[in-house]
Amino acid sequence: MRPVELIMKKRDGGTFTEAEIGFLVEGFSRGEIPDYQFSALLMAIVLKGMSPEETALLTRAMIRSGEVIDLSGVPGPLVDKHSTGGVGDKISLVLAPLAAACGLRVPMMSGRSLGHTGGTLDKLEAIPGFRTDLPRERFVQALEQVGFAMIGQSEAVVPADRKMYALRDVTGTVESIPLITASIMSKKFAEGAEALVFDVKCGSGAFMKSIADARALAGSLVRTGTGLGRKVVAVLSDMDQPLGRKVGNFLEVEETIDCLRGRGPRDVMDLTHRLVAWMLVAGGVCPGVAEGEQLSRARLADGSAWKLFLKSVQFQGGDVECILDPARGPRAPVVRPLPSPADGAVRRIDAYRIGLASVVLGAGRSRKEDAVFPGVGLSLLRTQSEPVRRGEPLALVHGQSEAAVGQALALCAQAFEIGPEAPGPGARVLEEMGSP
Amino acid sequence: MRPVELIMKKRDGGTFTEAEIGFLVEGFSRGEIPDYQFSALLMAIVLKGMSPEETALLTRAMIRSGEVIDLSGVPGPLVDKHSTGGVGDKISLVLAPLAAACGLRVPMMSGRSLGHTGGTLDKLEAIPGFRTDLPRERFVQALEQVGFAMIGQSEAVVPADRKMYALRDVTGTVESIPLITASIMSKKFAEGAEALVFDVKCGSGAFMKSIADARALAGSLVRTGTGLGRKVVAVLSDMDQPLGRKVGNFLEVEETIDCLRGRGPRDVMDLTHRLVAWMLVAGGVCPGVAEGEQLSRARLADGSAWKLFLKSVQFQGGDVECILDPARGPRAPVVRPLPSPADGAVRRIDAYRIGLASVVLGAGRSRKEDAVFPGVGLSLLRTQSEPVRRGEPLALVHGQSEAAVGQALALCAQAFEIGPEAPGPGARVLEEMGSP
Repeated sequence: MRPVELIMKKRDGGTFTEAEIGFLVEGFSRGEIPDYQFSALLMAIVLKGMSPEETALLTRAMIRSGEVIDLSGVPGPLVDKHSTGGVGDKISLVLAPLAAACGLRVPMMSGRSLGHTGGTLDKLEAIPGFRTDLPRERFVQALEQVGFAMIGQSEAVVPADRKMYALRDVTGTVESIPLITASIMSKKFAEGAEALVFDVKCGSGAFMKSIADARALAGSLVRTGTGLGRKVVAVLSDMDQPLGRKVGNFLEVEETIDCLRGRGPRDVMDLTHRLVAWMLVAGGVCPGVAEGEQLSRARLADGSAWKLFLKSVQFQGGDVECILDPARGPRAPVVRPLPSPADGAVRRIDAYRIGLASVVLGAGRSRKEDAVFPGVGLSLLRTQSEPVRRGEPLALVHGQSEAAVGQALALCAQAFEIGPEAPGPGARVLEEMGSP
Repeated sequence: MRPVELIMKKRDGGTFTEAEIGFLVEGFSRGEIPDYQFSALLMAIVLKGMSPEETALLTRAMIRSGEVIDLSGVPGPLVDKHSTGGVGDKISLVLAPLAAACGLRVPMMSGRSLGHTGGTLDKLEAIPGFRTDLPRERFVQALEQVGFAMIGQSEAVVPADRKMYALRDVTGTVESIPLITASIMSKKFAEGAEALVFDVKCGSGAFMKSIADARALAGSLVRTGTGLGRKVVAVLSDMDQPLGRKVGNFLEVEETIDCLRGRGPRDVMDLTHRLVAWMLVAGGVCPGVAEGEQLSRARLADGSAWKLFLKSVQFQGGDVECILDPARGPRAPVVRPLPSPADGAVRRIDAYRIGLASVVLGAGRSRKEDAVFPGVGLSLLRTQSEPVRRGEPLALVHGQSEAAVGQALALCAQAFEIGPEAPGPGARVLEEMGSP
């Protein structure tokens, strides 16, 4: 087999065999196939696609490039959730303890913020002392003793994905459903999950802007997971407007605390319960989503999810006092209100612009090497359909400097659409598909 | 401008501006844009195409990457011919002295054999002593004193093409009409030609197998040349069967001598006169191709082309004795006949298989670093429509060893189709297009 012949095969619309995909992934991982050949192959894949079978074979070959975490000793169904990324998406922090309280084990490995979307690791690390780099044995202990653990991705898991993503990022080959599918699935299954629920975000603040694109990705995730013999559910959810009322790292931890203590925003809670319900169905704990939602709401109401969250913060070295009294957490030095330009109601808040404002403030990263600040971000004082008077604050902007806050205020002003009338808030869950 | 954004623009079917094409070509030439980004861009160009305007802009940007040879001091119209490559294609060697004898100046820079097609430089260098690496001032002197010169491409001319081609060769991005067009045109115009005639080969022994592909390339060459303000003609010619009766390096020099002395095979001579005629029209020497053909045939008949060839061999250091008495030229040690398997006539000789046989013998190269042998190759004793009896030789195979000759004989046996009846030889010229 010669790499150039396989590049030409895909360029001409051919379908790879298992041996060919194995040769390409192994050759690239080991540095035997140079970047300049692999990037031409990636562009051919972006433009010519891959069949569901090829995508499943690519996922398997990528998993084989590194370690597979063995969680067979952990009792209980191992179910994880993965979001394609959004603005104000603190769902993982609320969902993991809730799913564990319902009887699941949640081995959650997350990433960092990049671009306009936030990252679960950055949010967790906003809790003073919280460690996301647990060694393997502590990770397994957390699953056994707490029921869930939230850590960063190990370098040893799917090294092929790390190398491929770095190349895709600089060669315009990120936007490919088969490549995105294989990247996500390979990591999740190598990390020990038995079943998976995907939150595929759709709208201005998401990677997929249109429902058609989101549906294509969700379908590919479900088909590939099913092809690999796993139970997979995909929930398509709206990310045209920020989720909840807080965007930032510690600000989202604060909102997580609200959620787990029973006073979370309705959109965050409804989506969280729905995702937990599907996890319970996929894990075989509940026969249907209705029962799943009921159980999830019960475990939130009885305080067991909140107790598990506190236990997890303590287990991972975080300052529990900060969780019990969030006023002690990190704060930004400059806080300024965004006044409403008119009387009326909030018609829409553009999630993409709010995401950009959070990056400007330092809650997220525009480049991988950027530092993030725990206290910065935005509190939305008015969300869709809520009335406001001219001059009243729509949001508070928390930043490190007047300059950053000024820039973020300008972006926020563009994000808010105020009108005489406003539609009621739409449902977050748009569609659901899967094989549980 | 960021390379990744331009890659994405082409990936999504966008059209580049002049500034964007300049940025990409300059950045790549200078090593500022790495290979792995440029190869992804090349694949996007292969799959999404380029407009005629983009192709002309690419050609211009490639020309700017190096030196442009100034031949403004050379009197007379400077017209060159370029063939897309074939099997037994010695036309350049016959055509250059003939065109010069008709009053044109022919600044011919040629390449070497690669794959199943031969290379003009390898053929010329089969003449003992012949130098294709003339310094610039000797090249200009040859144009002034002889009327034509046949040399290798200078490293200083269009370095961007050399670098791009090396990358295209290993990334499956050779097969693109805009990229092929820009590669050919940039070199030809940087080398000082004012007008150009293309011999676009079509058939099993050509790069373009179908008439549709050949027509697309010819159209692109004519459009791009016209867009650059030059007179350009493209002749589509048949390369389904080898041209003439000899394939190899010195063997083709021998056939060139036959042609210039008035006893060349008809297919070679007809195509040569037609191409010279178009060169004379493009150069403004003749009002139409009929007059051009007449002049070309006259200059062959009166021996002036033959005299110029001898003058050129002497000028470029070649052994003139060898041309006057080809029996003194390089010979292969092993010569074996290919007997006909049946009574009948030659229906077809597959040019591709004959080309492969010549590579096996060492007349051409399968890899750039392979050496070529001057004396090896094939003499075709029977060509299309000629009768043959079982056991009579169809061809002679000239090789360095029995092993190589044995392999080549097997390929030749597959190339010859013998049947009870055979079609008469078809015309070589299939279509013509241009803007002379």
